[in-house]
Amino acid sequence: MEQGTGEVFKVVPEGSITTPKGFTAGGLHCGLKKTTRHDLGAILCEVPAAAAGVYTLNRVQAAPIKVTKDSIANGGTLRAVLVNSGNANACTGKQGEEDAFQMRKSFADAAGVSEQEVAVASTGVIGELLKMDRVLDGIAGLPQRLGGTTSASEDFCQAILTTDLVQKMVCVSVEVDGKTVHVAGAAKGSGMIHPNMATMLGFVTTDVNIGRSSLQQLLGKATDLTFNMITVDGDTSTNDMLVAMASGLAGNHELTPSHPDYAAFAAALQYVCEVLAKAIARDGEGATKLIEVQVEGAESNRSARAIAKTIIGSSLVKSAVFGADANWGRIIAAAGRAGEPLNPDTVDIYLGEIETLKQSRPVVFDEDAALEYLKGDTVVIRVHLHLGEGQAIGWGCDLTYDYVRINAAYRT
Amino acid sequence: MEQGTGEVFKVVPEGSITTPKGFTAGGLHCGLKKTTRHDLGAILCEVPAAAAGVYTLNRVQAAPIKVTKDSIANGGTLRAVLVNSGNANACTGKQGEEDAFQMRKSFADAAGVSEQEVAVASTGVIGELLKMDRVLDGIAGLPQRLGGTTSASEDFCQAILTTDLVQKMVCVSVEVDGKTVHVAGAAKGSGMIHPNMATMLGFVTTDVNIGRSSLQQLLGKATDLTFNMITVDGDTSTNDMLVAMASGLAGNHELTPSHPDYAAFAAALQYVCEVLAKAIARDGEGATKLIEVQVEGAESNRSARAIAKTIIGSSLVKSAVFGADANWGRIIAAAGRAGEPLNPDTVDIYLGEIETLKQSRPVVFDEDAALEYLKGDTVVIRVHLHLGEGQAIGWGCDLTYDYVRINAAYRT
Repeated sequence: MEQGTGEVFKVVPEGSITTPKGFTAGGLHCGLKKTTRHDLGAILCEVPAAAAGVYTLNRVQAAPIKVTKDSIANGGTLRAVLVNSGNANACTGKQGEEDAFQMRKSFADAAGVSEQEVAVASTGVIGELLKMDRVLDGIAGLPQRLGGTTSASEDFCQAILTTDLVQKMVCVSVEVDGKTVHVAGAAKGSGMIHPNMATMLGFVTTDVNIGRSSLQQLLGKATDLTFNMITVDGDTSTNDMLVAMASGLAGNHELTPSHPDYAAFAAALQYVCEVLAKAIARDGEGATKLIEVQVEGAESNRSARAIAKTIIGSSLVKSAVFGADANWGRIIAAAGRAGEPLNPDTVDIYLGEIETLKQSRPVVFDEDAALEYLKGDTVVIRVHLHLGEGQAIGWGCDLTYDYVRINAAYRT
Repeated sequence: MEQGTGEVFKVVPEGSITTPKGFTAGGLHCGLKKTTRHDLGAILCEVPAAAAGVYTLNRVQAAPIKVTKDSIANGGTLRAVLVNSGNANACTGKQGEEDAFQMRKSFADAAGVSEQEVAVASTGVIGELLKMDRVLDGIAGLPQRLGGTTSASEDFCQAILTTDLVQKMVCVSVEVDGKTVHVAGAAKGSGMIHPNMATMLGFVTTDVNIGRSSLQQLLGKATDLTFNMITVDGDTSTNDMLVAMASGLAGNHELTPSHPDYAAFAAALQYVCEVLAKAIARDGEGATKLIEVQVEGAESNRSARAIAKTIIGSSLVKSAVFGADANWGRIIAAAGRAGEPLNPDTVDIYLGEIETLKQSRPVVFDEDAALEYLKGDTVVIRVHLHLGEGQAIGWGCDLTYDYVRINAAYRT
């Protein structure tokens, strides 16, 4: 969990996804994972929550994506999100779709909510049918496992993990109309189950009073600057999903773009997404460190984002950072192939505070200091193009022997 | 060297880049590489050769790219190509540009040709100035080292390598007007010198009589289907260059699009480019095998090419092949994120002859046979989309521990 840097919101260190009013959460082991770790979890809201969703752009989409889209499309509110790990329910055809809808119905019945108020998410193996007897048994016992404690939230966080090494959760508070509003989130990142896929799942809870379309707009904007700015290996999963639920129980006047505290809430939401996105990047498969790429002076923000993502996605840059190699040549080459405007004679490149390239010419720098810096657990690459005002930040991780080991392992 | 599969041309097993009439080649060690391997080479044509070039699209382009463009733009003929390895002469500013032009002038003087008939290519370290005293000494002695033997051609091939493990050269013959025309090529692929860059350099010699614009057109088309269909790690170098020279000494009537043997020559040229491109993919950094991705049934050829390149560039697919893992889930997920039309319910995937996915549903296959197949030195992934008539083939290599080792090595 990171310290909040903004003035308009505060990090709640002991907060969880059930800190926002109205939410409970929990998880249990139903038997989809081979270990005894939780593999089924849910977040439940005591009132219909305004809901928004962002989904994978992959043309091959898993069955639960269809179910969640259907639920959010009908009325725009959710009472619950049901998640399983251990099986992605992707490439499972008509049966997979029926199973996903069955999961929704069974949980709705068990929790006493209506079917179309339940979202479903899955992560894990592709191409295998769910063991529905285990899933349905688990669902039947799940409502009574939900609670408002941090420990219950951690049960949920465990239930959504695949091979992530750490749980990812954050909570902040922000004032709206003088009322304290909480925004919290939980996420999972790159893990794998055979035959596997790195899937990103994210869940945001808040008690702010906000309409569905405003929430969707804010979530989309926050996603562009956070989850869409991370890359572990450039592969987009069939199951990626980010869902936000707003209970409205904080008691503020409905938040709209003209509300004086709209920007403060937007900043809080973006911060929650950023913390989760960075945590996913840092915990990328085999990663030993977080890489942050800051691009400044690009022709536009859009252009800066494209350049940042090209640098953060370069296997050569990622391996160089793993090897603590101050290899600015690979950084400028990656920037140059992003397909964006760039003056090849005016590029500056910094590694942390160490300037390595100025106006596209090498700077003599202290190699020992650079080595020491690159050995740290966070490496900031800053590129200034001196072309315009566009800027962006992207996050990723190094490319390591462990990435190859994890992903070359024969399915057993 | 591979066997020719076409009917219209024949592979010349003992052929080299000096087999086409009019060409000599050679190489020597001038001192840019730390080892004693050759690092300076040239191809010389006894008459002005029609010339065509294809260059990196990276916005950061090395100085020699500028020189070669200038030479080919002026008159469209070349007498020679001069190449050094050990230093890419990239990000070297005004001095680097002066050095590249100086190389051109010095070689022109030494070989007795005009300045604008010489192309220059470099590969190696980025951001360091060339040791011009060594380069100029080398150039002075180079013309007398050029010859028409296979051994002289091999000297040239060695001079353009960085950390490539094998030399890459091929020669074919094709009948035009009943005259025997030769088309030959040499290339280098992914190597590294600190701070490094994988650079692709390719050189094609032929004695066909052809105009410059026809040659440029054929070279561009062949490049799209060969060199542009390979990927080692998705990074495009600052120095990539492919140059073709046609001496015209085969004595055929000038080859134009209406010439009856135009297609035969085009096929021969494309074959030469394909052999070199595949050799580069197979010899990619750390690679243990060649991966060929065949996409069929796409909406268009362009769409098929985009999908093939996305699959061949996927780190997850590449690591799975390294691990001999029949991981079709990663293949369909990569196809789905290519941003091209795809019906998620009609995809077939084969590994060699083994069907693993039919109409997007898993097929039970012999895992032992798949493992055995994937352990081979060439893996063919075939994806049929059942959407249209578009098809494409792309080549790449597996992602291995050695790739990470090579690219994480601290510059020493």
